[in-house]
Amino acid sequence: MPGQRYKITVAYRGSAYYGWQRQLAANTWKGPTPPPGHGIPTIQEILSRTIGRFVGHPINLVGSSRTDSGVHAKGQVAHFDTEATQIPPEGLRRAVNHRLPPDILVRSIEGVDARFDAIGSTISKRYQYFIWNAFDRPPFFGDLVWHRWKSMDLPAMVQAAKGFVGEHDFTSFARPGHQRETTVRTIRACGVSWRGPRLVIAVEGNGFLWHMVRIMVGTLVEVGLGRYPPQHIAEMLDARDRRAAGPTAPPQGLYLQWIRFAGDAPQVQPPPVR
Amino acid sequence: MPGQRYKITVAYRGSAYYGWQRQLAANTWKGPTPPPGHGIPTIQEILSRTIGRFVGHPINLVGSSRTDSGVHAKGQVAHFDTEATQIPPEGLRRAVNHRLPPDILVRSIEGVDARFDAIGSTISKRYQYFIWNAFDRPPFFGDLVWHRWKSMDLPAMVQAAKGFVGEHDFTSFARPGHQRETTVRTIRACGVSWRGPRLVIAVEGNGFLWHMVRIMVGTLVEVGLGRYPPQHIAEMLDARDRRAAGPTAPPQGLYLQWIRFAGDAPQVQPPPVR
Repeated sequence: MPGQRYKITVAYRGSAYYGWQRQLAANTWKGPTPPPGHGIPTIQEILSRTIGRFVGHPINLVGSSRTDSGVHAKGQVAHFDTEATQIPPEGLRRAVNHRLPPDILVRSIEGVDARFDAIGSTISKRYQYFIWNAFDRPPFFGDLVWHRWKSMDLPAMVQAAKGFVGEHDFTSFARPGHQRETTVRTIRACGVSWRGPRLVIAVEGNGFLWHMVRIMVGTLVEVGLGRYPPQHIAEMLDARDRRAAGPTAPPQGLYLQWIRFAGDAPQVQPPPVR
Repeated sequence: MPGQRYKITVAYRGSAYYGWQRQLAANTWKGPTPPPGHGIPTIQEILSRTIGRFVGHPINLVGSSRTDSGVHAKGQVAHFDTEATQIPPEGLRRAVNHRLPPDILVRSIEGVDARFDAIGSTISKRYQYFIWNAFDRPPFFGDLVWHRWKSMDLPAMVQAAKGFVGEHDFTSFARPGHQRETTVRTIRACGVSWRGPRLVIAVEGNGFLWHMVRIMVGTLVEVGLGRYPPQHIAEMLDARDRRAAGPTAPPQGLYLQWIRFAGDAPQVQPPPVR
């Protein structure tokens, strides 16, 4: 079958959705008590249904990252195959966006080689985490940031963040039950910056375990509050035990910023997205 | 009765509420068909109930502006009286904020002279209206801005905005049924600026009729799209007929920014609020 593979880049506000795709067995539930989130759609469900309507047949939409419930994306990437070969990507993008709810936006659609795989071709991903660090909570951005009112030691957090860089076993920073074969990941960069009153933590790596960024953030906040010394990150990694690291930060501050793939121009980053 | 009058300044995201206070007869409904918004609380109801819990008796909370459903405020002002005279304002503020939903925030509470009246002492108000002027809609800010994708003639809008400045009869820019005795208002400033991709319209005046800012914005957008010449504002004002002006912009882009009162230091503006 000839057909065509497409790569789509999607932004969404995750507040109203049960994540990109249901984790665990929530979407195969058949018992008497519905699991949490039953009946709440996933972003993958809404997107694949909408795209399928325009390409004329059901599609299988494969996303690069399974963002959790409440987590946002500026640049999630997915691929799908169509039977037709002649769908103009920009026309499809506009038609799909016209039908999607206001908190999901397809930023781009492009035809790609059939060897492109949104999961397998991933080289690098970048997440951002936004903390609203002021005494009063932000009435307009309640589900777009994590509000922490206590002042934090930014230099200590910057120093601690460096402790994550490199290749490490991240068992201590993964929610148990992640079902991944290996827990070794390489973090290329981890930075903390102040865009008052926002404290922004950015992490780039070749892959992330379940809740990994949120546990890294929760741990960095503990460092900022003086509960761990910044040097302690190395010991936490060595422990290979979830209980050695800090708490899991809530989902609403987390954004999947961008994903880079094999074959992308190496130095060209995607343009900043809002 | 001795007691004490308090002035409070409040910020809120209006998306989930039926405005500051129900307009018309929605809150006195007794018939078989509930009016729109029935059962959805108003910001005034939530605030007065929460404050009443801490001062120990029901209060009458008088707001300076009746913002409509979906309209936001950075600096709404209201007053209320208590029987007690010794409530520490900052303690009350923190206790109330702790109980309020995340999209309502009391920015300040201060004891004031009993002659202060949130409505009667108002000298000047400033509103802002945010238009997201880019081809793609903003997935994170859908209910905080009005999305208009067509490009607009900013100089023409700036010129048209000047036509509102001064003392005019604003009948053409008021929703019929406003029940105000006079439709003459003085606009001190009306400006249009570009904070890409946001187009911001700011209006300051001594008072506003029902939907007045939203009709001014809807008309300025029509000017920006070339449907009226900028000089046409004077004719619209002269017509004293709602049908002479442009459409009403939707509520979600509108913010009550601040209110100034008799006795405030004349040149000191409140600090910028987020």
